[in-house]
Amino acid sequence: MKVGGQHFRTIWLHPANERIVQLIDQRFLPHRFVIEEVSTVTQMANAIREMHVRGAGLIGASAGYGMYLATIEAAGSPAVAGFDQRLVDAAAELRVTRPTAVNLTWAIERQLTSIAKGETAQDKIDLALRTARQIAAEDEEHCRMIGQHGLKLIEEVARRKNGKPVNILTHCNAGWLAFVDYGSALAPVYAAHDRGLPVHVWVDETRPRSQGSKLTAWELGQHGVPHTIIADSAGGHLMQRGAVDLVIVGSDRTTCTGDVANKIGTYLKALAAQDNKIPFYVALPSSSFDWTIRDGSEIPIEERGAEEIKRADGWRDGQMLEVSVAPESSPAANYGFDVTPRRLVTGLITERGVCKADEKSILELFSEHAS
Amino acid sequence: MKVGGQHFRTIWLHPANERIVQLIDQRFLPHRFVIEEVSTVTQMANAIREMHVRGAGLIGASAGYGMYLATIEAAGSPAVAGFDQRLVDAAAELRVTRPTAVNLTWAIERQLTSIAKGETAQDKIDLALRTARQIAAEDEEHCRMIGQHGLKLIEEVARRKNGKPVNILTHCNAGWLAFVDYGSALAPVYAAHDRGLPVHVWVDETRPRSQGSKLTAWELGQHGVPHTIIADSAGGHLMQRGAVDLVIVGSDRTTCTGDVANKIGTYLKALAAQDNKIPFYVALPSSSFDWTIRDGSEIPIEERGAEEIKRADGWRDGQMLEVSVAPESSPAANYGFDVTPRRLVTGLITERGVCKADEKSILELFSEHAS
Repeated sequence: MKVGGQHFRTIWLHPANERIVQLIDQRFLPHRFVIEEVSTVTQMANAIREMHVRGAGLIGASAGYGMYLATIEAAGSPAVAGFDQRLVDAAAELRVTRPTAVNLTWAIERQLTSIAKGETAQDKIDLALRTARQIAAEDEEHCRMIGQHGLKLIEEVARRKNGKPVNILTHCNAGWLAFVDYGSALAPVYAAHDRGLPVHVWVDETRPRSQGSKLTAWELGQHGVPHTIIADSAGGHLMQRGAVDLVIVGSDRTTCTGDVANKIGTYLKALAAQDNKIPFYVALPSSSFDWTIRDGSEIPIEERGAEEIKRADGWRDGQMLEVSVAPESSPAANYGFDVTPRRLVTGLITERGVCKADEKSILELFSEHAS
Repeated sequence: MKVGGQHFRTIWLHPANERIVQLIDQRFLPHRFVIEEVSTVTQMANAIREMHVRGAGLIGASAGYGMYLATIEAAGSPAVAGFDQRLVDAAAELRVTRPTAVNLTWAIERQLTSIAKGETAQDKIDLALRTARQIAAEDEEHCRMIGQHGLKLIEEVARRKNGKPVNILTHCNAGWLAFVDYGSALAPVYAAHDRGLPVHVWVDETRPRSQGSKLTAWELGQHGVPHTIIADSAGGHLMQRGAVDLVIVGSDRTTCTGDVANKIGTYLKALAAQDNKIPFYVALPSSSFDWTIRDGSEIPIEERGAEEIKRADGWRDGQMLEVSVAPESSPAANYGFDVTPRRLVTGLITERGVCKADEKSILELFSEHAS
């Protein structure tokens, strides 16, 4: 999507040097637009762990490029056994960076399967590069399709509202910054806005890392979509007052039965949507499905450092600063995600269409995963 | 309660000068313990509006002392007409500071009724001082009683848990800092802790002003009560995982039918408590009842400045700093409170005992308000 009028993706190969991956270092948004160059697996693992890149699809694409960098590093090893071992080590190093994100494992496995088909080191590098590009391109195309399918839901509400803006609430950032382009939850919003439908987005700030106020508000603003930032606690009140027509969120991992792991707090918004009879949709490319888990309670929930809760980081006088917002001696706990049970989900918006959040409906769209 | 081993209330008369009110300026907590001296109505209105003092009971006590300061100021006016007009003006100036807090109006009206009984200016000053002290003393005593009634609920859970800590989730600050002493939601916690029961409090940080992480965590820590700060979004997840035994929150205004206005986000925690079959209690002194409103949707909801959402203020290098956490060009909305419908409230803990959140039960305890 556009940044200052110019089209960007979140991750791409350096145009003059294929051994370097470039990505937007999202830690500095919305205050500064920083492009980082990554040329080793360890740098990529660090970029994922420390959330220079984040979001389901972008984590997958980053892991894909990370495994490509692994083949280049492995080719520097003396023997073929060394090559394979380097790949295994790289996969392990990348896999532990973010335990909840299913796209991470998905992209790594896809790369390992693909690379295994090569005979020479150069074969493997070429295959890894092609696969990394495919993962990124598919992510982009799937998000574009999610936008088209979700657009119909917004059009329906828009017809009922007779020209008044459709108010959509979203949590965290599931916009183009969380993918390679377009986004999942925001893809329908961009599609509707580009189609000329009046939309307005309530943006949950999403403590502790404030991906809503820092990333979602920024990307909506850059694209010209009307929006308002709110505290994470405000969504229920807005729903009670009739100020929300539709909730659309993303997902870091969705079970094949329809339970949705997403940024901590998603469950609370789903409860409020149900209590106020507001449709609650989850937008996700199929790479975010976990076909092996049947119950959301089995999804591992990442716990991050307590300091994220006890500090707020923002911008002041041209620099990033962290301020303390809690007593030094008080403990804090920092759960990254929660699981919204399928009974609270009105529907899933995927690249193949909208379906109910139940196993039968999901497998009708993705029949290749029916056992 | 204790601050560094010394007993404090949140507001008191200067020990050497009855024309000065002293209060804890809570804006600097937990990093600095600042005592402010207030000697005019305008200073008191500012202290309430700018949240040097906040919380249902403390706003009432502050308004009570504010009206006492008004009588001193009015006595400086030349004529009796001037005196009464000054009182009316002072009442108006104080009344508009925080629209949702019912204790504010309640305390002002009580003072006006009381002061009207005086004949001379000195009479009126004496009556206002006595009433201000009564309001504060009653607040303290009512909170102490809330602690005793709520203690029984915690004891019940503690018996079931066989020595394992009772996990209580609270939102915002309804501790002693929100009242003159003891608090409402935290009064039962302090009573249980002092009785030797093992309790642990999940403290919602409570954006945007972080009264949870800044005030609740601080006062629990000063008193030695185990606690953990969490993001406002985390409570639902903890409840799903069985890590919450009881929710206790305060209230800024409760209708005579049991609908509860409290800090924005309370409604979301009530929904999660219901979804996970966890008791959800609201602790309030009777001064927080609004006997004139029958439906929570009629309660005016304060909207505060958008900057509170777009900024975070905290401590760094020995000073308070505000950092920006959102794009400068993005709008934000800042709703201070929401209304939790009575159907989600397990019970109300008042100074006269625990009752159901319905009109009949409330009026059984407070029969003087039955019409």
